Amino acid sequence: MKAELIAVGTELLLGQIVNSNAQYLSRELASLGIDVYFQTVVGDNLSRLSEAIETAAKRADILLFTGGLGPTQDDLTKDAVAAVLGRGLHIDRVAMDNVEKFFQGRKVPMTENNRRQALVIDGATPLTNETGLAVGNAIAQDSKFYILLPGPPSEMKPMFEHQAKPWILQHVLTEERALYSKMLKFAGIGESGLETRLLDLIEQQTDPTLAPYAKESEVTIRLSTKASSELEAMERLEGLEAEIARRLPEHLYATEDVPIEKTIVDLMTEQGLTVSAAESCTGGLLMQTITSIPGSATVFLGGIVCYSNAMKEKLLNVPHDLLEGENAPGAVSAETAKVLAEQVRMIVDTDFGLSVTGVAGPGYSERKPVGLVYIGISRRDGDTEVLELNLKGNRDTIRLRSAKTVLYHLWRRLKSEQQKQ
Amino acid sequence: MKAELIAVGTELLLGQIVNSNAQYLSRELASLGIDVYFQTVVGDNLSRLSEAIETAAKRADILLFTGGLGPTQDDLTKDAVAAVLGRGLHIDRVAMDNVEKFFQGRKVPMTENNRRQALVIDGATPLTNETGLAVGNAIAQDSKFYILLPGPPSEMKPMFEHQAKPWILQHVLTEERALYSKMLKFAGIGESGLETRLLDLIEQQTDPTLAPYAKESEVTIRLSTKASSELEAMERLEGLEAEIARRLPEHLYATEDVPIEKTIVDLMTEQGLTVSAAESCTGGLLMQTITSIPGSATVFLGGIVCYSNAMKEKLLNVPHDLLEGENAPGAVSAETAKVLAEQVRMIVDTDFGLSVTGVAGPGYSERKPVGLVYIGISRRDGDTEVLELNLKGNRDTIRLRSAKTVLYHLWRRLKSEQQKQ
Repeated sequence: MKAELIAVGTELLLGQIVNSNAQYLSRELASLGIDVYFQTVVGDNLSRLSEAIETAAKRADILLFTGGLGPTQDDLTKDAVAAVLGRGLHIDRVAMDNVEKFFQGRKVPMTENNRRQALVIDGATPLTNETGLAVGNAIAQDSKFYILLPGPPSEMKPMFEHQAKPWILQHVLTEERALYSKMLKFAGIGESGLETRLLDLIEQQTDPTLAPYAKESEVTIRLSTKASSELEAMERLEGLEAEIARRLPEHLYATEDVPIEKTIVDLMTEQGLTVSAAESCTGGLLMQTITSIPGSATVFLGGIVCYSNAMKEKLLNVPHDLLEGENAPGAVSAETAKVLAEQVRMIVDTDFGLSVTGVAGPGYSERKPVGLVYIGISRRDGDTEVLELNLKGNRDTIRLRSAKTVLYHLWRRLKSEQQKQ
Repeated sequence: MKAELIAVGTELLLGQIVNSNAQYLSRELASLGIDVYFQTVVGDNLSRLSEAIETAAKRADILLFTGGLGPTQDDLTKDAVAAVLGRGLHIDRVAMDNVEKFFQGRKVPMTENNRRQALVIDGATPLTNETGLAVGNAIAQDSKFYILLPGPPSEMKPMFEHQAKPWILQHVLTEERALYSKMLKFAGIGESGLETRLLDLIEQQTDPTLAPYAKESEVTIRLSTKASSELEAMERLEGLEAEIARRLPEHLYATEDVPIEKTIVDLMTEQGLTVSAAESCTGGLLMQTITSIPGSATVFLGGIVCYSNAMKEKLLNVPHDLLEGENAPGAVSAETAKVLAEQVRMIVDTDFGLSVTGVAGPGYSERKPVGLVYIGISRRDGDTEVLELNLKGNRDTIRLRSAKTVLYHLWRRLKSEQQKQ
């Protein structure tokens, strides 16, 4: 079963809005086991819209439209689909009542063009609009299925969930099996490195399937299988998941779609541990990442942004000789990263102290290259781990990767402590 | 000049990510006077991708691709375009050097599949990737233009801005009159408020045109006009800009597309001023926003994240009686915001001290509602301004709006001081 999404609206082509409907519907259809092969966006233009419909009808079984159901002359989706199918349009009485009631309730006169919102293609099932006025349409012809939904997500989503989805289950899906997925999340490894270590599994894949993708310092693998129940699906995915976990234990941090900071906050909450941070080049990004997680307040107690050398001395007791002088290691050094992590841990009185100091660019600093970053992780009653990073990218990327790398190493530390218990 | 955008990636068809690249490129092309007629999304599948290219080449003059330039077997965009154009592919030496240097720098062995990232279509102009490894491509054939960009927005945007856009201006746009635009940026006002105050201008618009749009606590107005030179265009835009500035002087912070923190860093650098911050509920977000601006190191010296009450007392000298006790105002109060701003200004020894303390949610705190936030701005040898905010939204939105509101009020303060001089 192949689907194509057609979003209608010149505002999309002008970049005024982003096509979030496509993401929503793609996910929903994937969960029904329906493959979306194409997403198309077309403007409010009858000939180009008709062309898009004809193209889609050749390559897909089910066409889902969003947008173009409103009252104005620009709203052409129903006209275009009706013309392609060789059918007429009529006013649906229930939908028309809904439109009239709305205007009576608001005590505003109804303009004539609002009647267009109640139009239904001859032979189609009207889909009630719970949160708006434009009625939806669902119709089958020549073994193809056409579903017309409104553009605003606040109208589209309830109509899909309560009207279109049941219609699809009844008229389109005759197969019993649905698609089930599981997400595995990795840190400290790139997409290509991950692929190399799982190449045989990727090449062998039939069912379950295995799809890696990367996003800002995180790599995700989606495992998917078609099954008649969630239990059956999860049993089938278990073996593959175990094999991946066996190969990449030092990178697989979660088996659901969460960022690594969420896993860290959960692990630390469980174990009653606390953390603080001293940041130079990341300027607060590391702390803001941790505190973006609800419930982080019991784990993260506080920290210091020491952007200037004077503040490194004053607030974090970094010795002056370490920072300045002919042979001093400087602010961007393993030595400074170590002091920062240890001092912030002691000042805030936490189990872990984190630190970041480096050159985020665009200019270099202390004659050190852009991308050179030192990170520290200090443990109460334990040692202080310091790492040198050589990162690539612009200022934003270097800052983000620095913060994510600290989190990755903190996670590894937490995990190894957990295993020792 | 008609364009079609083709986004390549199964993750889009599965709804794992939203096609924000289409929005960005549509806007950019609109600003160049190029009409986007279709946006297409296709998966990592050679035959369907080739089909999409052939369809697009029939109906558009310029085809812009995003995604599918990476190292894995799934990354097929270059192969598909080369095949449709009847051309081969070769390794670009500069791009290959870039890939090799990356792996040398990281001291990680380069896997063989990474060579694919340096592939260029025979005869194409390589587009340098400033923030990643996959090289872009631009090529003209049979009066059609093909531009291949990477999928991650952090790589795509700089490549478009610095490589693809100049290539388009040189090779594609031959028309004498181009579209010129100017961006006006506003803070402290919403899109509908702005629209209301400019309604007559918006309704009258023909040329220049005036388009407002909103994004995360900032509102932008784009003024556009077609002209034969930039000088002519800017003269035509001047009158409209002056009228808008006259109506909204307390909100218009920039006449180019920059965030308010950039304007603040520039103003403070000019005037030799410094700033520090004490953050509770924003957890570092305010400082990370300021320090995201290159050159902020001379302006922003440091700050403290005091997530727990104990840290508010220890690091920022907030009196215990203010924080705890039956009739104490509590951590989320105007009194605490005032002390935080004053103390951090004195501790870090800066001209301004900023503070944020509030309830970001999801749970309430101190029996105070989610969204109640106090912000403070303390001035050396001056007073301390404290404001109560009642924000709506989820945890992320409340944190972001808190930080942006502090910045807005700091900007107003800086501007009013500048005018007094």
